[in-house]
Amino acid sequence: MTVTLLGAADTLDRQSGRRGDRAYLSGLFRHREARVILIENLDPLVRAASPEHAALIWFPASEILERCEANSLLFLGISKGDGVPHFALRLALDQREAFSRIYPLEAATDFRTLASAGTLTAADLALVGLSRSLYAWHDSARHCGFCGRPTGTIDGGWKRHCEPCAKDTFPRIDPVVIMLVTDGERCVLAHEPRYAPGMFSTIAGYLEPGEDIAHAVARETYEELGVTVTNVAFYNSQPWPFPHSLMIGCVAYCAPTLLTIDRTELVEARWFSRADAAHMLARTHPEGLWVPGPQAIAYHLIQHFVAWT
Amino acid sequence: MTVTLLGAADTLDRQSGRRGDRAYLSGLFRHREARVILIENLDPLVRAASPEHAALIWFPASEILERCEANSLLFLGISKGDGVPHFALRLALDQREAFSRIYPLEAATDFRTLASAGTLTAADLALVGLSRSLYAWHDSARHCGFCGRPTGTIDGGWKRHCEPCAKDTFPRIDPVVIMLVTDGERCVLAHEPRYAPGMFSTIAGYLEPGEDIAHAVARETYEELGVTVTNVAFYNSQPWPFPHSLMIGCVAYCAPTLLTIDRTELVEARWFSRADAAHMLARTHPEGLWVPGPQAIAYHLIQHFVAWT
Repeated sequence: MTVTLLGAADTLDRQSGRRGDRAYLSGLFRHREARVILIENLDPLVRAASPEHAALIWFPASEILERCEANSLLFLGISKGDGVPHFALRLALDQREAFSRIYPLEAATDFRTLASAGTLTAADLALVGLSRSLYAWHDSARHCGFCGRPTGTIDGGWKRHCEPCAKDTFPRIDPVVIMLVTDGERCVLAHEPRYAPGMFSTIAGYLEPGEDIAHAVARETYEELGVTVTNVAFYNSQPWPFPHSLMIGCVAYCAPTLLTIDRTELVEARWFSRADAAHMLARTHPEGLWVPGPQAIAYHLIQHFVAWT
Repeated sequence: MTVTLLGAADTLDRQSGRRGDRAYLSGLFRHREARVILIENLDPLVRAASPEHAALIWFPASEILERCEANSLLFLGISKGDGVPHFALRLALDQREAFSRIYPLEAATDFRTLASAGTLTAADLALVGLSRSLYAWHDSARHCGFCGRPTGTIDGGWKRHCEPCAKDTFPRIDPVVIMLVTDGERCVLAHEPRYAPGMFSTIAGYLEPGEDIAHAVARETYEELGVTVTNVAFYNSQPWPFPHSLMIGCVAYCAPTLLTIDRTELVEARWFSRADAAHMLARTHPEGLWVPGPQAIAYHLIQHFVAWT
């Protein structure tokens, strides 16, 4: 399997207009071909001897409901071709062992490892990422932020509701700007404290209230590198389920300049030539430096820069 | 004053790296030129006989702290030129009357009205919008979503913290895609149930978890208009403080086709020619149809379409 950009979960018809129809969803769940993925904590149950050979398991809906957390049902959508309903469910904590006896090869496998390994299909990986984002949001919204009382899940897992406040809460998505900073000839790549040794990437940061995309790019670039951005071009975007971000990829242009690095955010940042960046993509850099793999939008931003003529 | 796009609050240095330094912020608040805007509920206190002649009041920090909600202090940033600190505070509910006696011309004025009227400077309007977004988020995050207990404000109003969970919560921003749907010659504009009579605008919708921008545009366009999008181009973005959205403006290309309108979302949607759209911008359309003003990104998307050659 080839590793590709962790992309949008667009293979199913999400039927967002019908999520509120409880009878409809319950009919879909009883559909004889209804398929379900199981999530333990925030990671999917896969069939695997090792993460490098993992395959997502789509369980028949009828078999697994009793072993899962009540109210964890998530409606993912129906196949665009044949209308087969797809769901996610969260494995109840005390059911893990019973499950292992019935399906001996399953393990809940770290999502980040799966995304890097490229063993799941792009479609499956995107649906697992979507489920992961929604469950992480559910965990953070079990109580009403206005009054503190427990909220309930509605609309097939796409909404939570507080009865006393009569308020709905919707899934949270955090927009992040991620930018290739370039003077036209070179690009800036940085090493953050949390990175593996030798890994460099494009800088990134959360967009703040009261900002548009271009201003967030300019502010973060100035804060982290001391560089004044003269122009911002949108490149592409990506859902990033850690836990529920939207990566907004941009190219940030600036004049050639020295970097003034914010050492609380970055261990190191450097200008790299196209040749250097090409070696880091190919993992053949003489200093052993490398960049994230093609599952991440950073890879594609760097590749885009390398390919400019 | 000219009405312009409600834009990014970028006139101040936000000093996002120093928000956690309580002593620093408290020193800034005691700065003899420190300036404060007051927000009542989610609307700013302005000096005005009418919204059309409103001016934002920047109060001297020293004068107003005792009349405001404890813990409502929001650090907006310092002037890029002279370093003057800027803050927002929320007027305590029982202080409204006392305040009116001292400053007889103030009124808390609906933010949407102010944005349309164009009486505030672009910089002031953006800072009020930022404050509005943050206060709306604070209201929705007074209790921890994980455990339900009260949270406290830290980092100059940019973070809330739950002691028992040891968790921080950050301001929420909801990404929204807003798209001019076009077949190259005509564009689709729609009338939603909440619109004033005769108003049409570009369609829009919240981006969902597991989507990138292009897929959200395609999904929403298909759901609302029954139209298959063949290409999506990013146009521009805008912070939209109702209450805390990021509008991501795109052009969505499609083949000429009949519309299949989702009547639960839209009252009406139609194809309009460039000439029609130009009249709607100028508010000279023979049927009395019109589009939002230049404070909204929709106006600029439509103007962009009209200006294509």
